[in-house]
Amino acid sequence: MKISIIKIGGNVIDFPEKLDEFLALFTKFPGHKILVHGGGVMASRFGESLGVMPEMVDGRRITDQETLDVVTMVYAGLINKNIVAKLQALKVNAIGMCGADGNIIRSIKRPVKGIDYGFVGDIQEVNTQLIDHLLLGDLLPVVNAITHDAKGQLLNTNADNIASALATSLAKEHQVNLYFCFNKSGVLIDEKNENSIIPMINEDIYKELKKENVIHSGMIPKLDNAFEALQKGVNHVWIGKAENLHLAAKGKISGTTIERSRYDLF
Amino acid sequence: MKISIIKIGGNVIDFPEKLDEFLALFTKFPGHKILVHGGGVMASRFGESLGVMPEMVDGRRITDQETLDVVTMVYAGLINKNIVAKLQALKVNAIGMCGADGNIIRSIKRPVKGIDYGFVGDIQEVNTQLIDHLLLGDLLPVVNAITHDAKGQLLNTNADNIASALATSLAKEHQVNLYFCFNKSGVLIDEKNENSIIPMINEDIYKELKKENVIHSGMIPKLDNAFEALQKGVNHVWIGKAENLHLAAKGKISGTTIERSRYDLF
Repeated sequence: MKISIIKIGGNVIDFPEKLDEFLALFTKFPGHKILVHGGGVMASRFGESLGVMPEMVDGRRITDQETLDVVTMVYAGLINKNIVAKLQALKVNAIGMCGADGNIIRSIKRPVKGIDYGFVGDIQEVNTQLIDHLLLGDLLPVVNAITHDAKGQLLNTNADNIASALATSLAKEHQVNLYFCFNKSGVLIDEKNENSIIPMINEDIYKELKKENVIHSGMIPKLDNAFEALQKGVNHVWIGKAENLHLAAKGKISGTTIERSRYDLF
Repeated sequence: MKISIIKIGGNVIDFPEKLDEFLALFTKFPGHKILVHGGGVMASRFGESLGVMPEMVDGRRITDQETLDVVTMVYAGLINKNIVAKLQALKVNAIGMCGADGNIIRSIKRPVKGIDYGFVGDIQEVNTQLIDHLLLGDLLPVVNAITHDAKGQLLNTNADNIASALATSLAKEHQVNLYFCFNKSGVLIDEKNENSIIPMINEDIYKELKKENVIHSGMIPKLDNAFEALQKGVNHVWIGKAENLHLAAKGKISGTTIERSRYDLF
């Protein structure tokens, strides 16, 4: 099968109109699809209403029992079910899932090394057999950022990592493309200029761009993650804005494509 | 297929130890199973923490937008995913679903007749084809009390009605038994005596018991519901305590069985 895995974040989820626009374009995206979402901003807002204050270390949420309950409610309940209902209205047979559902993603609680992140999961295994069964039944899985340890414990898990883990696991038997939607138009030469998109990056270009300090800080883990996915068999990885995703499907330049193969471009 | 549909309520869900005990027994229940749950008490408690006060008319929750968000978070998120994780720990491949997931239950917003219940759903259609696909994939659906209208709107729906609708729809092609777990040991001759269980009720006995005022008030809609399910092809309906459900599976008297066939018992 040809499978597209698309990850969206808070910059789409938090704005009902943007979400509706995105979902309408998303349904036209060809072939089998899996949608992955987080929803950290909404979780922080609801947590605060309940008196559960977000605690972040290096951009990662410390997840105590109360925070876990909040993210489970917001990711797996509120956000996931509203996305599914909206997709159903667009005649797409979406099915919302956390990692515990059908045991699709098993994690382990992150070991304490200096920082105790609490109930945070590091992904161990993806149940590709079930995902195949669902895709063959013409279902579109909408996967949120909650996983489990197969011992009864839910775990808060990074949505980018979920998208990567799904992609690399499914790539063993399928042709998989991975799309990360975020708040920039792609990898930019000039951070302040949304038109300065670098259309394609391979490992050689990546090394060059890091050396020249064009790519730095927050972009590095994203790209390392992308290259790791490619090394594990994913076809190509795309990074860009959700509203440009449909152009990517048509092969138009609309973000940054990260490719395994090395071309001699320079 | 032989399918058992089991509905549990707040008196099991609200107590972690009772829920664990129930789930351990439930997994031993033979054959294909679907678990249906509500969770009204927990929803009320969370809603209150968020400043959303429950408003009830004749035991039914008035569901405005904020209340809908709360029940979606609590039923489809917190309760559903914790039950699924606990079942996975018991090596049962549970999959949590609301009615929007895979479009398994489509409802319409209840028309306003005197009382405006808000975002409350009356069930219209069950997607039995998908449920078959899941059961054949050895999955155990855990269905919560949120449905959708297939136009993008989630709807708060009575969990007893969800269990009945699943049972009557699946009964068209399968042999279905329906189990309602509640806070009494069954239909009782003396409400205050948990040992006064009426082991079997058919329509003749039901008429007699209503005439004698042994069955009245809250029990009547439950039994009407049960007889309607039988008329629509459900094999038998059982009403009793969650902790006695495993005895019902062994054919022991442990609650009240409601039967279609009329015997001359008296």
